[in-house]
Amino acid sequence: MGELVLTTFDWVPEPPRGFVRDLRVRWAMEEAGLPYRVATTPFEPRDAGHLARQPFGQVPWLTDGDRVLFESGAILLHLGELSDVLLPSDPAGRGDAIQWVFAALNSVEAASLPWSLFRFADDDADTPGRRHLDAFLAQRLDHMERALGDRDWLAGRFSVADILMADVLRLVERFGGLDERPACRAYVARATVRPAFRKALADQLAGFAAADARRAGGA
Amino acid sequence: MGELVLTTFDWVPEPPRGFVRDLRVRWAMEEAGLPYRVATTPFEPRDAGHLARQPFGQVPWLTDGDRVLFESGAILLHLGELSDVLLPSDPAGRGDAIQWVFAALNSVEAASLPWSLFRFADDDADTPGRRHLDAFLAQRLDHMERALGDRDWLAGRFSVADILMADVLRLVERFGGLDERPACRAYVARATVRPAFRKALADQLAGFAAADARRAGGA
Repeated sequence: MGELVLTTFDWVPEPPRGFVRDLRVRWAMEEAGLPYRVATTPFEPRDAGHLARQPFGQVPWLTDGDRVLFESGAILLHLGELSDVLLPSDPAGRGDAIQWVFAALNSVEAASLPWSLFRFADDDADTPGRRHLDAFLAQRLDHMERALGDRDWLAGRFSVADILMADVLRLVERFGGLDERPACRAYVARATVRPAFRKALADQLAGFAAADARRAGGA
Repeated sequence: MGELVLTTFDWVPEPPRGFVRDLRVRWAMEEAGLPYRVATTPFEPRDAGHLARQPFGQVPWLTDGDRVLFESGAILLHLGELSDVLLPSDPAGRGDAIQWVFAALNSVEAASLPWSLFRFADDDADTPGRRHLDAFLAQRLDHMERALGDRDWLAGRFSVADILMADVLRLVERFGGLDERPACRAYVARATVRPAFRKALADQLAGFAAADARRAGGA
């Protein structure tokens, strides 16, 4: 393992604060007690150097020695190879956690993220496509509600799958989407009371607040 | 490695045929020359036995000996451990392919799948949320267009990342979303001309056609 450097934006507007995806990586490194430092890249403009490291112009990316990794899912699997606090090392437990990593990002977030775009826009137009999208998310959440009914964590014990799933579900909760799903709400509460999450969230918010202060000072 | 058994639906309606996700798994196993057989589960109803194997009531799932795996991304990473045709075995190449696996499923498909729901519904209502969703996909495709500009495959050579990304992009192409993106179109064409894809697609379509014939015979 080389030096771990997490790169996030130097500033973001208010609405996404607390939900920028560097949070997932901070949370994982805090859980595992991995030493790391945080670097920043300009929110605007996103130049060729940024795109060379993160081809979609997003954050985070993680540098581990001479390797650069993007995609929060890939970064968390990489960190899982560094610490079995994050990912079980036995093949069955590892495979179980990995399938739930993909479930968080592809079965749930592929429904919840677009749904959140409509909620961020305060768009409640009743159109056929929107009804499909709302039903798509509702169905995925119903299945999560049932799947979570009998377990604290997705893969037998806390793992990177829970970091991703809980972070995906807390954006749904922000917009009231878990109001009738007590098992999902309890799961988010169980995950976000963990000291590693609290520190990750506080650190992200403090970084953007410091950027506000610098901007105000420079104005 | 145990016996590989891929489970898909016994029948689906016309619109998703050719795009049911067992295709991704068939394609990977054909590329690697892994022996497998195909089993089916009822399209309706999706009972407790189905949900025990695939908690979202979807397909595919893969049985490898006594292990059952769901999520096409997790299944393809598992197959990648069985064959370096699918996933480079050197750490840098492997890490590169894995991050593009997540890019396909979380950076591109999280935009393209919901967009396709609106297209399947013939919904072109111009609302604020819809404009955000269309812009979200357009931005991700613009980045893919640039990223693909100088390469045949995502991770230096063909890998599971290309199976997933090409399958994600071909659904966009189906609805005209790649019309002004020649690099994405050429990439999809390059991937889907491969014999393993052609066989996977033909086998999926033949399976559903045989189900039609059985239903007609039994009616």
